[in-house]
Amino acid sequence: MFTELPRSEFDERLAAIRERIAESDADAGVWFGATSIEYLTGFDHIQTERPVVLAVTEDTVGITVPRLEVERAEPVAHIDRVDHYFDYPGGEPIETAAEMLDSLGVDSVLADSDGAPGVMGYQGPALSEADAADIDIDTQDWVGRMRWAKSDAEVDLIRESARWANLGHRYLAEYTAPGAHPTTVSQRASMEASRAMLDTLGDRYVERVRGDGPVHAGYISAEETSLPHGHTPNQRLEVGDVIITGATANVDGYVSELERTMFVGDSSDEQEYYFELMLEAQTIAIEALGPGVELSSVDSEVADFFEEQGVADLAQHHVGHNIGLGAHEPPYIDRGWAAHCERDDTNYDADDAVMEPGHVYTIEPGLYTEDEGYRHSDTIAITDDGIEWLTYFPRDLESNTIR
Amino acid sequence: MFTELPRSEFDERLAAIRERIAESDADAGVWFGATSIEYLTGFDHIQTERPVVLAVTEDTVGITVPRLEVERAEPVAHIDRVDHYFDYPGGEPIETAAEMLDSLGVDSVLADSDGAPGVMGYQGPALSEADAADIDIDTQDWVGRMRWAKSDAEVDLIRESARWANLGHRYLAEYTAPGAHPTTVSQRASMEASRAMLDTLGDRYVERVRGDGPVHAGYISAEETSLPHGHTPNQRLEVGDVIITGATANVDGYVSELERTMFVGDSSDEQEYYFELMLEAQTIAIEALGPGVELSSVDSEVADFFEEQGVADLAQHHVGHNIGLGAHEPPYIDRGWAAHCERDDTNYDADDAVMEPGHVYTIEPGLYTEDEGYRHSDTIAITDDGIEWLTYFPRDLESNTIR
Repeated sequence: MFTELPRSEFDERLAAIRERIAESDADAGVWFGATSIEYLTGFDHIQTERPVVLAVTEDTVGITVPRLEVERAEPVAHIDRVDHYFDYPGGEPIETAAEMLDSLGVDSVLADSDGAPGVMGYQGPALSEADAADIDIDTQDWVGRMRWAKSDAEVDLIRESARWANLGHRYLAEYTAPGAHPTTVSQRASMEASRAMLDTLGDRYVERVRGDGPVHAGYISAEETSLPHGHTPNQRLEVGDVIITGATANVDGYVSELERTMFVGDSSDEQEYYFELMLEAQTIAIEALGPGVELSSVDSEVADFFEEQGVADLAQHHVGHNIGLGAHEPPYIDRGWAAHCERDDTNYDADDAVMEPGHVYTIEPGLYTEDEGYRHSDTIAITDDGIEWLTYFPRDLESNTIR
Repeated sequence: MFTELPRSEFDERLAAIRERIAESDADAGVWFGATSIEYLTGFDHIQTERPVVLAVTEDTVGITVPRLEVERAEPVAHIDRVDHYFDYPGGEPIETAAEMLDSLGVDSVLADSDGAPGVMGYQGPALSEADAADIDIDTQDWVGRMRWAKSDAEVDLIRESARWANLGHRYLAEYTAPGAHPTTVSQRASMEASRAMLDTLGDRYVERVRGDGPVHAGYISAEETSLPHGHTPNQRLEVGDVIITGATANVDGYVSELERTMFVGDSSDEQEYYFELMLEAQTIAIEALGPGVELSSVDSEVADFFEEQGVADLAQHHVGHNIGLGAHEPPYIDRGWAAHCERDDTNYDADDAVMEPGHVYTIEPGLYTEDEGYRHSDTIAITDDGIEWLTYFPRDLESNTIR
């Protein structure tokens, strides 16, 4: 059982990247994306207007960071060299990165983009336009693709996340009552579950959040549930309300997703009708999962079921998505996924249209009436010969009724 | 006093955009960025792998959204037309947007980018490559630039944010004690302040968060304070610890920033020495602010002060940044800002190098020793003839000592 990613994972990831570089004409791989940089080295940072630039050559991992990240980057075992600029824009991050590349003897790179993303107002030159060195740039999405299939250690972290999400969800259910405020129930459940996680893991807990807890559990309620991306209303709970929950925990950067449709007090016949249809759709999707299964076919099975039941117009989104370091990651369980893989403007091909061991999917088909929404979400890993449920809060109506 | 942005603001913003369009050869302005779309219309959404595309023509505001955002987009007063695709990638968002533009009679656009950003694994075609219509595209950053100077109503929202941040901060101070857990203090303060804000504002509260509260107050403590972007450690507070707090509240999308360096119990002579230097640096920066002031000069004054005091090597970042709908927004109070404005690869010129009424800045010079950090942050508006403090928690040593 891991609560921290073993260092050997980074050795393997970097080795895979170096194989790609060796097969190419480039001298190095370069990344501007925070999640990719974390995936390759374990150095995590928030993507802001201050660019961070990672370069991997045959024998060196170099990183250019703003001054304020130097002490966080230097101890990272898989980073050999830390260069820095003072701040943005005065410190000229792209020029600093170009100088680093030049001093590493790099003339040509395969990069995730030709310059840093325009986050928080960042406007910078392309790396290919740097004055400090003349760098040839082509682009690649190696890490985006590598992240699809998780290793056993990564699945361990997501499984651990699901445990704490489950505790947060249990507290949510416990504190929910007519007259309670959904915001306060949510924040209290997050606080208590975070505290339990911190005290249980102790030194095994990897610090990843700032001024907040590692567990988040919360919900939207009443009419807001009719909107898949609704907000928590400033309105106390009443008997008859539907709620849609969401719970997760951050375990060394990895997350899971647990969502339940719950009822405050007894549910109406109509509510039970939609709940059971949603539940059956989720079961159909989960039973369809497995290695070698076409992602599109799972979404189509659910769509066909909704069509048969005459509720197709109440569906508003596809069945689910991969999850890991990101809350949403490709591939997506979407009826158009297979066609997407074969388009010229994606980096994918027909082989990318099927599920593989190590993919971890949220399964969350939903139904949305004018008044209310119905959606569970479970996090499920594809294994060599089937699936493993990582989330485990009960799914049935009785268990999700607050009395 | 506003707690919700008046609709007239959107009229003014759209009118300004339409003036730009009329002056150009283009038929429409187009935006893929979530914050820009919110700024122009009031429609807020989370940027995910599902693109949202806004088009503003002479007489119509049209938006293409995924199916799951339709019911949230339709009631927005400043949106005239909502088109949708089912989901990504099956629904082909860029083709849907191109069809919308075509049916609006648009052949040429000025867009914030030629396609949606690569968020959460999105990979899509450029708008210029859509099959559905042949659209000529040039790029613009009109909204990014418009957001620099806030209207009176926007400053009102940030002022309101600072009030609730202050309450969260007061609770932080109250719950802090030797033996307390920094995570639990942070989450409890956020919960209590959120509850007070929700109950005080009632119907005036604009729903903006999901499964969480509108106020966040928290801190990092002990050695983590030596890292400007440190994490909250899993370690209870002890007498002698330094903490660096952070508090904010979401008021119809707008945020403020309040940070304080605090001491658990009496501080040492060394701690007081650095605290007072940091405090004086912040005062120097605040006294230098005003309309027409060069941003670079404010950062340079602080750098000169640190140099005189022999602590220049303990500074790790510039003085601050603009704030509003984004937690960090340009312009940045950075000694290189003036040169940045004059570079060919930014959209700015020399006129953009000075502060103007309506800019709202965080002022947060910091000092970081090997063991601890020292930083306050206040949110301060530039007015027609000076400044207005929006945050107001006391800054002195005594008020920031927990006994």
